[in-house]
Amino acid sequence: MNFAQVKDYLVDLQNRIVTGLEQVDGQSFRRDTWDRPEGGGGTSCVIEEGNVLERGGVNFSHVFGKGLPASATAARPELAGRAFEAAGVSLVLHPRNPYAPTVHMNVRFFAATKEGAEPVWWFGGGMDLTPYYGFEEDAVHFHQACKDALQPSGEEYYPRFKKWCDEYFYLKHRKEPRGIGGVFFDDLNQPDFATCFNLTRSVGDHFLAAYVPILQKRRDLPYGERERDFQAYRRGRYVEFNLVWDRGTLFGLQSGGRTESILMSLPPVVKWRYDWSPAAGSPEAKLYTDFLTGRDWLPLG
Amino acid sequence: MNFAQVKDYLVDLQNRIVTGLEQVDGQSFRRDTWDRPEGGGGTSCVIEEGNVLERGGVNFSHVFGKGLPASATAARPELAGRAFEAAGVSLVLHPRNPYAPTVHMNVRFFAATKEGAEPVWWFGGGMDLTPYYGFEEDAVHFHQACKDALQPSGEEYYPRFKKWCDEYFYLKHRKEPRGIGGVFFDDLNQPDFATCFNLTRSVGDHFLAAYVPILQKRRDLPYGERERDFQAYRRGRYVEFNLVWDRGTLFGLQSGGRTESILMSLPPVVKWRYDWSPAAGSPEAKLYTDFLTGRDWLPLG
Repeated sequence: MNFAQVKDYLVDLQNRIVTGLEQVDGQSFRRDTWDRPEGGGGTSCVIEEGNVLERGGVNFSHVFGKGLPASATAARPELAGRAFEAAGVSLVLHPRNPYAPTVHMNVRFFAATKEGAEPVWWFGGGMDLTPYYGFEEDAVHFHQACKDALQPSGEEYYPRFKKWCDEYFYLKHRKEPRGIGGVFFDDLNQPDFATCFNLTRSVGDHFLAAYVPILQKRRDLPYGERERDFQAYRRGRYVEFNLVWDRGTLFGLQSGGRTESILMSLPPVVKWRYDWSPAAGSPEAKLYTDFLTGRDWLPLG
Repeated sequence: MNFAQVKDYLVDLQNRIVTGLEQVDGQSFRRDTWDRPEGGGGTSCVIEEGNVLERGGVNFSHVFGKGLPASATAARPELAGRAFEAAGVSLVLHPRNPYAPTVHMNVRFFAATKEGAEPVWWFGGGMDLTPYYGFEEDAVHFHQACKDALQPSGEEYYPRFKKWCDEYFYLKHRKEPRGIGGVFFDDLNQPDFATCFNLTRSVGDHFLAAYVPILQKRRDLPYGERERDFQAYRRGRYVEFNLVWDRGTLFGLQSGGRTESILMSLPPVVKWRYDWSPAAGSPEAKLYTDFLTGRDWLPLG
């Protein structure tokens, strides 16, 4: 377990991703460095009204403290009171073009230490894609990149983390997946630190290859008010998921995290309307019937 | 304790409020009646793209069941497994004009029964106002109507329920009140059923007088893109409160309530932007400095 090594990787990952996205967009991200009064801090990189990205944030944070609050360890009461350290990179990008999907990626590391005891640590992370208008080839490309990221660690990871992603990014109050999925994992600490770190690093390292080709392909497709309107409506689901179900968002907001960094994930313009659904057979209906179905995008086995 | 009497009152209240609002707006509400598979149902009255109201809903629901789930009674474990019955009217109105405030009102009744035991019951409710551009006279008018509603039940209620409202409608992650407050109460079952019912009824009955004069005064004020933009930004706070902190919304969504009726409270068009605050001294800044301060709008005592 080497925390400094993980932190260095995360700082570098954030820089590489922001630089890569700036090359695509042509507009620079704003960079805000902030301190956490209780220990640690972070850097939030934000783009708004870019050429391609309507709103997006790539956030790095590294927080630590002396006594882990009981609320943070409900599932592991034996960790209460331990010193802790957590670091991660988290991003959400909302392109302007309704044919380009929203994307989310996160890699994170947590460690709880106590003198005279073995440190307890785990990795978590993943990435998932949320289209407004679905393209089968985009979904396949994204899942292939997820699989490529995990394959070096072992055959078993992609199917397991793909399923975990479908289960996690699910709006129970809508009985609806958030998007076409990807991969998600948490509590990863087996078989050893090096294997877990390599796997997590590979997920972060594959992000640009997973997303940028899709963004490039869709960024300049012509669209009109109808598509923008549907995008704004569907973005409401993103808000609902993040504020009602996402554990990271809720924990951050309820535990005094930096609100503006946490809510960078929310879309720039959102609409709600009552009991609306798209006309059967329309391109909008196709999103529900063909894409928000938890299907397998890659041939299994 | 007479449940039928409460239910009749609530059905009538919904009708009176919807009729009153239709007279103001000139457009009819859509009325949807729905059943709850586990027992009960409701009527949702919705307006969208009205002449004055951009989006609004007035919801009546009456639900019952045989065994109260433990999750619903965390604070009162002795009620688990009892038969229960709950009814309420809940409304949120989002006017189009940014000078007209958003308003919320709710009155509700809950009863848990068991053969051979005294029924356990309580009332809850209140109303609160959320301006985008504040007007002192509107805040005073609204609070005066709240006080008028409670005064017949006793001097002590308005100050107590005003404070409770300020505490409840508070965005902890923003350190910011949702609006200029009003009144809020819950668990009301003293001194007796008749007193509690009268008080709750008076709150419901005062809603139109509390809000309609404000709406009429502001509905036709001239505004431009700047004011609409600030309104959309501030509406984001409404979404954040309702999805992150509001117990009724969260419980409804997480317990299989009717999603479209619960989320009628969300605004039609919402914007999020990073780390934004209004220029010092601007009309937008005045909202924060002069109105979102938990102040007393009526002379005390």
